[in-house]
Amino acid sequence: MSQTIRLALDAMGGDRAPEAVIAGAEMVRARHGNVGFIMVGDEARLAPLMKGYPELSRVCELRHCDAVVGPDERPSAALRNRRPTSMRVAIQAVRDGEAAGIVSAGNTGALMALAKMTLRMLAGIHRPAIASIFPTRRGRTVMLDLGANLECTPDNLVQFAVMGEVFARTVLDIEKPSVGLLNVGIEHNKGNETVREAARLLQSGSLPIEFHGFVEGNDIVAGTVDVVVTDGFTGNVALKTAEGTARLFVDFLREAIDQSLMARIGYLLARGALKNFRDRIDPRLYNGGVFLGLNGITIKSHGSADEVGFANALGFAVEMARHGFNDKVIEELNRWHDGRSTEAQVAAG
Amino acid sequence: MSQTIRLALDAMGGDRAPEAVIAGAEMVRARHGNVGFIMVGDEARLAPLMKGYPELSRVCELRHCDAVVGPDERPSAALRNRRPTSMRVAIQAVRDGEAAGIVSAGNTGALMALAKMTLRMLAGIHRPAIASIFPTRRGRTVMLDLGANLECTPDNLVQFAVMGEVFARTVLDIEKPSVGLLNVGIEHNKGNETVREAARLLQSGSLPIEFHGFVEGNDIVAGTVDVVVTDGFTGNVALKTAEGTARLFVDFLREAIDQSLMARIGYLLARGALKNFRDRIDPRLYNGGVFLGLNGITIKSHGSADEVGFANALGFAVEMARHGFNDKVIEELNRWHDGRSTEAQVAAG
Repeated sequence: MSQTIRLALDAMGGDRAPEAVIAGAEMVRARHGNVGFIMVGDEARLAPLMKGYPELSRVCELRHCDAVVGPDERPSAALRNRRPTSMRVAIQAVRDGEAAGIVSAGNTGALMALAKMTLRMLAGIHRPAIASIFPTRRGRTVMLDLGANLECTPDNLVQFAVMGEVFARTVLDIEKPSVGLLNVGIEHNKGNETVREAARLLQSGSLPIEFHGFVEGNDIVAGTVDVVVTDGFTGNVALKTAEGTARLFVDFLREAIDQSLMARIGYLLARGALKNFRDRIDPRLYNGGVFLGLNGITIKSHGSADEVGFANALGFAVEMARHGFNDKVIEELNRWHDGRSTEAQVAAG
Repeated sequence: MSQTIRLALDAMGGDRAPEAVIAGAEMVRARHGNVGFIMVGDEARLAPLMKGYPELSRVCELRHCDAVVGPDERPSAALRNRRPTSMRVAIQAVRDGEAAGIVSAGNTGALMALAKMTLRMLAGIHRPAIASIFPTRRGRTVMLDLGANLECTPDNLVQFAVMGEVFARTVLDIEKPSVGLLNVGIEHNKGNETVREAARLLQSGSLPIEFHGFVEGNDIVAGTVDVVVTDGFTGNVALKTAEGTARLFVDFLREAIDQSLMARIGYLLARGALKNFRDRIDPRLYNGGVFLGLNGITIKSHGSADEVGFANALGFAVEMARHGFNDKVIEELNRWHDGRSTEAQVAAG
């Protein structure tokens, strides 16, 4: 039987905390088994709620603290302010080796700042990245960075490629994930110097990565590759553009149907089939901004996520811990550096 | 009665040339009136087709040339190769003052390179930009740059803002268009130095532009602003991401409906209403990459556009010519420079 995976939860972060956090944890316990939680927050609020979850209570340690990072608090303020917030205490549990990872639906900037300061970077990684999953025509694709680094060097992009590839292989269970670099065209002479140099590094063959080459914006949801790598500026805009377009479509469709009685009857007949459609694009199944490159699993759930969404984010953390995600990333990076120094030696003769 | 507007058409560019070009020109003639065309291409193919359009023939001059820029020809090759292609001859008609603008469904890179070399930049504009129209929740939004400049200075972005604003005011007929700068967040401290400096310039008040501030990816199709300004790398990715997401939605919806008999019956009942939905997002109504900043109106129709799509792109050219688009841009830029030097005098004084 596999080892129990313990995760620290910021029970007070997000619009629906602590209820959605507790209910989400229970869903993950029932689904994955062999998990344990450190639930950090206001004991006076948590304890009565936990009474409704006897099985979860058995694998859950409550850790009291009464401060919370505000949703609009600036990351710099969250760093300076040394009070023990539920977010900070949960991250510290990871630093102290009590938990393999932390999941929070609280303030994104504060979570990144606190996690970076407390957990430090993973050996060999220069910058953290935020990754998320997209539904695509072919299945699921992971994209990074989504906003942690607005400007990236070619080396940063290569490191993101390594982390994204390991994520797709372990968490998404894709045997040989293909990796693409987001660009304005697929020809090798397209784009700026940064993406072209990153492509050269990824093509060099010293990484065991299936590098597809450049991909374009439409390739993200087409599922052309399993991993899309880009800088945080472009990734953030692409993510929000896709979300906005999806929302516009649903609204336009609803408005068109509402305008006609025939269409409303038609909708009732098609409702079952449309449920499949909705399930396929249910944003809760894609909830979870995964912070990669930190020395401890860190996941940000959407602030408005319900228990299904929170459970999805938490599920990513369980899978990452189970597969030793960070160890695998370090392993790949070592292979990469070994390959590069061998190449340098060969070149030096 | 307003003056006749003459436009030069690359009759041989695009997958459906010359049929879609001729049929599209006829649609614009019937719709706008008071237009004339220089139809450039292989006379042996054009003349028989024109026989079917007696009214168009009266306002259309055929200009023979038998060479065509290939769809995969590199812009540098198209520049070097001095043979008179339909694209080159049509652009020369604009340079020589015979036509107010050129519309082509041919090779994008070649069109930009040839137009830039032949027409030169508009006085005061440093870099050209490609603009397109998006359907949004509120109506229509114009976004630029979509790929002409992968890296932009703050001044470039300000000039794009001026051109986008004039386009929205004249062609889209929006009285006081609002302008937003695409960024990873709306707070003033978000983003890289380039967008923050561009925002400072746009806020300075020496431009008569309604500057909204920063917008995010989801704001593009939400229609938060009438003009979205960004660099060509981000804009290109955002455009293709939106297109890809829209296509994925339509496909997912179709698959869901095809899976069930009830849903197919429902679809038949809703068909009329869904036609409104489809019309609202019909890509043909948004066809046309408008090259802004050149000393002559230049519009790229999608290579696969049919006559409705081509007519839409051509319609933009008519409206730009009718409103003296380029003169208005120069006027705005002069106001901007006057405002800046006044500010400098005040500051120095």
